[in-house]
Amino acid sequence: MNFRSDNTAAAAPEIIAALTRVNEGAASAYGEDRWSKLLDEKFSALFERDVRVFTVASGTAANAISIASLTPPWGAVLCHREAHIECDECGAAEFYSGGAKLVLIDGDAAKLTPATLHEAIQRNDRGIHSVKPAAVSVSQTTERGAIYKPSEIAAIGKVAKDAGLGFQMDGARFANAVAALGCKPADITWRAGVDLLSFGATKNGAIAAEAIVCFDPALAEEVARRRKRSGHLLSKGRFVAAQLLAYLEGDLWLRLARGSNAMAARLAEAAGPYLSHSAESNQIFLKPGAAALEKLRAAGAEFYEWGPAGSGEARLVVSWNQSGADIEAMRAQLASLR
Amino acid sequence: MNFRSDNTAAAAPEIIAALTRVNEGAASAYGEDRWSKLLDEKFSALFERDVRVFTVASGTAANAISIASLTPPWGAVLCHREAHIECDECGAAEFYSGGAKLVLIDGDAAKLTPATLHEAIQRNDRGIHSVKPAAVSVSQTTERGAIYKPSEIAAIGKVAKDAGLGFQMDGARFANAVAALGCKPADITWRAGVDLLSFGATKNGAIAAEAIVCFDPALAEEVARRRKRSGHLLSKGRFVAAQLLAYLEGDLWLRLARGSNAMAARLAEAAGPYLSHSAESNQIFLKPGAAALEKLRAAGAEFYEWGPAGSGEARLVVSWNQSGADIEAMRAQLASLR
Amino acid sequence: MNFRSDNTAAAAPEIIAALTRVNEGAASAYGEDRWSKLLDEKFSALFERDVRVFTVASGTAANAISIASLTPPWGAVLCHREAHIECDECGAAEFYSGGAKLVLIDGDAAKLTPATLHEAIQRNDRGIHSVKPAAVSVSQTTERGAIYKPSEIAAIGKVAKDAGLGFQMDGARFANAVAALGCKPADITWRAGVDLLSFGATKNGAIAAEAIVCFDPALAEEVARRRKRSGHLLSKGRFVAAQLLAYLEGDLWLRLARGSNAMAARLAEAAGPYLSHSAESNQIFLKPGAAALEKLRAAGAEFYEWGPAGSGEARLVVSWNQSGADIEAMRAQLASLR
Amino acid sequence: MNFRSDNTAAAAPEIIAALTRVNEGAASAYGEDRWSKLLDEKFSALFERDVRVFTVASGTAANAISIASLTPPWGAVLCHREAHIECDECGAAEFYSGGAKLVLIDGDAAKLTPATLHEAIQRNDRGIHSVKPAAVSVSQTTERGAIYKPSEIAAIGKVAKDAGLGFQMDGARFANAVAALGCKPADITWRAGVDLLSFGATKNGAIAAEAIVCFDPALAEEVARRRKRSGHLLSKGRFVAAQLLAYLEGDLWLRLARGSNAMAARLAEAAGPYLSHSAESNQIFLKPGAAALEKLRAAGAEFYEWGPAGSGEARLVVSWNQSGADIEAMRAQLASLR
Repeated sequence: MNFRSDNTAAAAPEIIAALTRVNEGAASAYGEDRWSKLLDEKFSALFERDVRVFTVASGTAANAISIASLTPPWGAVLCHREAHIECDECGAAEFYSGGAKLVLIDGDAAKLTPATLHEAIQRNDRGIHSVKPAAVSVSQTTERGAIYKPSEIAAIGKVAKDAGLGFQMDGARFANAVAALGCKPADITWRAGVDLLSFGATKNGAIAAEAIVCFDPALAEEVARRRKRSGHLLSKGRFVAAQLLAYLEGDLWLRLARGSNAMAARLAEAAGPYLSHSAESNQIFLKPGAAALEKLRAAGAEFYEWGPAGSGEARLVVSWNQSGADIEAMRAQLASLR
Repeated sequence: MNFRSDNTAAAAPEIIAALTRVNEGAASAYGEDRWSKLLDEKFSALFERDVRVFTVASGTAANAISIASLTPPWGAVLCHREAHIECDECGAAEFYSGGAKLVLIDGDAAKLTPATLHEAIQRNDRGIHSVKPAAVSVSQTTERGAIYKPSEIAAIGKVAKDAGLGFQMDGARFANAVAALGCKPADITWRAGVDLLSFGATKNGAIAAEAIVCFDPALAEEVARRRKRSGHLLSKGRFVAAQLLAYLEGDLWLRLARGSNAMAARLAEAAGPYLSHSAESNQIFLKPGAAALEKLRAAGAEFYEWGPAGSGEARLVVSWNQSGADIEAMRAQLASLR
Repeated sequence: MNFRSDNTAAAAPEIIAALTRVNEGAASAYGEDRWSKLLDEKFSALFERDVRVFTVASGTAANAISIASLTPPWGAVLCHREAHIECDECGAAEFYSGGAKLVLIDGDAAKLTPATLHEAIQRNDRGIHSVKPAAVSVSQTTERGAIYKPSEIAAIGKVAKDAGLGFQMDGARFANAVAALGCKPADITWRAGVDLLSFGATKNGAIAAEAIVCFDPALAEEVARRRKRSGHLLSKGRFVAAQLLAYLEGDLWLRLARGSNAMAARLAEAAGPYLSHSAESNQIFLKPGAAALEKLRAAGAEFYEWGPAGSGEARLVVSWNQSGADIEAMRAQLASLR
Repeated sequence: MNFRSDNTAAAAPEIIAALTRVNEGAASAYGEDRWSKLLDEKFSALFERDVRVFTVASGTAANAISIASLTPPWGAVLCHREAHIECDECGAAEFYSGGAKLVLIDGDAAKLTPATLHEAIQRNDRGIHSVKPAAVSVSQTTERGAIYKPSEIAAIGKVAKDAGLGFQMDGARFANAVAALGCKPADITWRAGVDLLSFGATKNGAIAAEAIVCFDPALAEEVARRRKRSGHLLSKGRFVAAQLLAYLEGDLWLRLARGSNAMAARLAEAAGPYLSHSAESNQIFLKPGAAALEKLRAAGAEFYEWGPAGSGEARLVVSWNQSGADIEAMRAQLASLR
């Protein structure tokens, strides 16, 4: 009953097979191979418009390169207080951007709203003596497992554009959002004003493959330079490209995400009144108290406690390959708490 | 007859197999898995002392993280004018270090000598108004395919230590050097004063796996932070660890490097008088003139012209999996130039 | 009735005279002149121990150079939410430090307490995935005109040292604090654990002169390099040194600060129930509501509204050379509000 | 006989007087005072077009802020090997720019030519793996006392524009160049393609006053932000403005520069065959050998030896207030060497 994180999971067999498939003969290095060259085309089809795709090896790299491309060093990047870029990337955004400042916004379910964003822009736009609001970053799905609806993203995008801000989306669990919403990827990205998306695959079945999807052609050169300069332009690019091509092929990405979403929903059902956030994707949060969490642990469940020490709240993340037996066993444990 | 670069080659079957082998069950993320934890032990055995190992996805990352850990932002890093960190990494060392300066040293075969290093230190140590010599970086093998003998590295190391400089080695082709020298890895690294080594595997049969080998325990925390902050601490660390474990297993790394070195020697033999550098590893340089290079190309050979446009000099790099047929065909072409 | 800020004031005649006095003959550049060389001695006497002094032209530079010398790029600097370094320096601390993160602490009167500091350290020390608490910064006096007692500084210093943090003090209005406390400068700095002090003179009668006072000799080389590299080592150093020497001579600095403190106390007396913070130095805060502030403005008073627009709160800053007539006129206006 | 540097000189009485003159009453801080506001107007008149002026306290700051505004972090800045920004600013350009690379060009008299610049651009424009030529920087006068003619600047400007490069001029001794050329300031700046000029006053009679003159309105916001963020926007801006206004008033700047140029010419005449560079401004270089330099020193002359230790070459810099007696005494010494 390991629900610690979806990045503890193995890779999907389709992904492993893809590596073997491209491992033949010589191929141009640094993204000039034929598989890498296919990426723009495949992602353009997926997003229903011309996009440029830049592969990197981690979500932190995807986020930091993107944010640095949307803010000057004296800019402010507005994000939720619990955002991954604030809490879990050891200051990568500050490093890549040359010292931009993350301005933190509070809100339920780790979500921004047009109102909270607007207020933060107003409060932080104070002339030469202060950093200048330059970009906004949202996570889809959020760090609390919530999902922005297309209209919510679009409303945030409108506030951003009206204020001249760039718009970045951390899509480490983008697949879970699209799977849950049943929408087009375009509906929660460029159609809603997003400039750069970190399209994650690693957590949902890949080995190490993330893509920066660039919707604004004017940003492509800067993203490319920042990727190279940070050591994220890999020489044998075919092996990253292969993972992403396999991930898109036959909608593998959505199939896997639908599976983990559905399993999480079953856990949520069992957690019932203890849920501390509504369960919308493959992460659920419950707050049965410290003693109950201890009991779950004693029964063999693995998970992270969430929030400050002793909060009595836990996060359960369901991986793409979680077994049905795991889910049923955990459901029984959760039911026993009530 | 593709001799453009060893990073155009496929991965060795042992490496691919290793990925499959570790792709079972859940494993702790971010280097806490059991394969990653083996790395320190295996590399410590290889280097005959306790070392810490930090995996990254590219040689550029390995070099830049290391250099930044050896120099303050106001430091000077002394290296050869043709060093990869100067010419081919888009300023990664400057980015990671917060703006340190690379000070360039000339010399045959892309090598530093104790004398040229000493002179550069003297010339650049000018007090508060100038950057301060802080580190030296050498490539083993060099960008001209040359190999430093253990005594040469040690002499450079002594100059560095006497001047209080850190010592970094770019070992993108470290295997080829050890294979050619027949020495212990320790003899050309920490025993000779090296603090941080970029131990490359990608060019010699891996998919994407480089290791920063840290010989100075006092540097480990900084290297770890810089790796995380730059997005090079991968979540599914087992897949990088697996490549490196397979690479060391049964001396695969030396076996592959001996092979490419030997094939390159056969090409060098055929190039004879046209060799512009002595052939010591898996790269050879020849200068038969522009017309001759054109002739080679017309015969189907692929390679990079070296130096300024129209130099008439070429670099041939032999990959670990170069076919015997390729080598024989190229030997015939080279012989025909004479 | 201009109470906008003490940096709108002219310079004291003693300061201007000092410039003329040193303007004779040639003098070594870049701090090697004899006046600059006196600074270490004079400040060492003032602080009752050996110190190193580095002059700069602005408080922002003093703070940013100091903070960068106390934190690695992946560090967190803990400070109050209203700290000058957070609100009014356009991200200078982030720029100089290579992207460290300011972590904000709430608290009355813009003060930190041992408890709030301790809590912030605990909450933000989360291992490799997050920035690492590295330094704490306090303002003495604070941005709300409050003054830390020696015991309060010492208690903060103890928490900092126990957690391995550096301790920086923004002393843009250090003179007002010492004047109000009647303590020794040492009592609120190094004896209380402070490593680096921005000793301000500009707001209290100088033209442009701030000193970084370095209590830890191990930090001096780094401070010196960062000052040079940022363009704050002035060539004609005698003119900054002269200002600081005149400022200390005969306790001019305390005399001026006592004056502005006393005048502010008289304003506070008149503001009575409208004071929103206790009046301890040369800044007072009152909150009579928006209409009352409008009335004051109509009567000719100049000041900044504080907090969010429409807050109805104002800051009045008394300069060293504020006229008695100004004070009496303003007292009358304040009295008329009641 | 102190010829070490023009920054060892006192300030001109007109400059000191100006400080006293503006030291009356309250004035808005941070460049909003009425003297600072005059700067744009006065410099626009001087340069015969609308310009924006940003004062800073040092030439290093002026250069570094300007260069950072003309290059991305992954850019290359082309300059002479002996440029002040390369040799004497402790890496300020690298710091401010976030790690751009200075690419060094050789040439007589510390001058670039269109040909050497063109060649350097070609050689360094190598695609994604290398930094990208982004700006060129020249010193007028150069570090060897030479002066670019308007046509020379224009030819360099043309090469820069054709290649899409920004053009920065280090004018620490701009006055000496204009005085010697007898041209309009516009002729060697914006009319010749210069985007940003560091207009120096400190070396030629001011206390500490340099101006970034911005000829491209699109750059002004970035320059302003970088100035603030680096701590170079001084609160009591009137005192820097006053220096610059007095410096321009009645062509004081040209009068002083003509004086030092003329005195240097007299020294050059005496140095005769020992001159190692043609004497064009207030710096002369002579190479009479180590023994002769020793003799000059024994006679009381102060100066810096130039080039590597033991070069036997010296630099003599004449200050604006050098005495006639100094000059005559030094002429006698120089004559005695022949």
